This record gives sequence, structure tokens and C-alpha cells, in this order.
Amino acid sequence: MIAKTPKPSYYAVIFTSMRTINDKGYAETAELMVQLAEQQSGFLGVESAREDLGITVSYWQDLESIRAWKMNAEHQLAQRKGHQLWYQHFKVRIAKVERDYEK
Amino acid sequence: MIAKTPKPSYYAVIFTSMRTINDKGYAETAELMVQLAEQQSGFLGVESAREDLGITVSYWQDLESIRAWKMNAEHQLAQRKGHQLWYQHFKVRIAKVERDYEK
Repeated sequence: MIAKTPKPSYYAVIFTSMRTINDKGYAETAELMVQLAEQQSGFLGVESAREDLGITVSYWQDLESIRAWKMNAEHQLAQRKGHQLWYQHFKVRIAKVERDYEK
Repeated sequence: MIAKTPKPSYYAVIFTSMRTINDKGYAETAELMVQLAEQQSGFLGVESAREDLGITVSYWQDLESIRAWKMNAEHQLAQRKGHQLWYQHFKVRIAKVERDYEK
């Protein structure tokens, strides 16, 4: 469940969100987006948890692979629905992972 | 609940963890560490969610403020207990937030 990412540096997209009460199609789309992301060039892993706040961190080789995923047609449709239906608020932060350690 | 961070750049510490079944003192310490972190110089915000996987992302002005927090005496004690008692596995990633957008 903790993503097995390579040695830094690489990139993280930190997606933090508060949902609406509208969950029509949400779970299916969220699962499909993870499956699709896993097939993208430069995808390194994803970690996700939700209580009131949801946090999904996806890891990518470089900014170009993040950009390509953002532009993916199915992902664009999901983003539009997320914006209109599923998320009250969200914040996306794009960050360069410089260092890591683990137990 | 979504952290109100300033314009990039700043830093994110992405802490991903799998807990043990030992929760003695865990919740109190976790809450205390958030309170303490909020008092540190350079602290910008924190976001947290747990299902099986726990994700806590804290935001900091610079690497120096992250280092100072890591070295804080009470935090060091909590880190030791976390390592020995509360976490099966964890991963810490230190990342420079270069860009953000939101709804």
C-alpha cells in the first residue's frame, strides 16, 4: 500500500479534496482512473486515504509524464465531473521529491 | 481541512504509514505532535487521512524548518515510539512544491 518508488528525485502530485454528497459514479471512476494511471508512461505509484478529507498522492518520473496524464482524454472527462459533481473543494500540488527514508 | 498554503515554492513532508495494532498512547501523541508542529517556525499547514494506509502531509517554508522540527526533543521521542511501537512500515518523502491550483 505504501508505494515502492525509486530513488529520488521524482515527482509527487498531492491531490487533497473535500467531497460533495453526490457519489454517482464516483467510486467506479476513481478506481478506473487508478487503473488508467498505472498504464501511463512515467507512473511510479499511488497512495490514497480518505476520512473527511481525502488525500491521493501519485508519483511520476517527471513533469512531462504528469502533463500527459492530465491531458489524457478519459482523465479529462473525470476531471470535469470531479469539478462539477464530486468535489466541493480540492487542491493539487506538484512537488519534486528530493529525499526519502523509510522503516 | 485543506491546508491554506502560500504561493509556491515551499516544502511538503509526505508521511505514509501502516500502523501496528498497538495504539497505546498513539492518538494523544499524534494530536500533540500536530499542536507542537503548528508552533514551529516555518510551519505552513498539515493535512491528514487514514484508512488502512495513513497519509499525513505537512507543509514547511524551507528545509531548515523541516530539519528543526525533526530534531525537536518531544518530536524525537514520538518518532522513537512510532518506530518501535506504532508503525509497521512508514515512508517519509521530502518534496519541493513547485506549483498548485485549486477549486
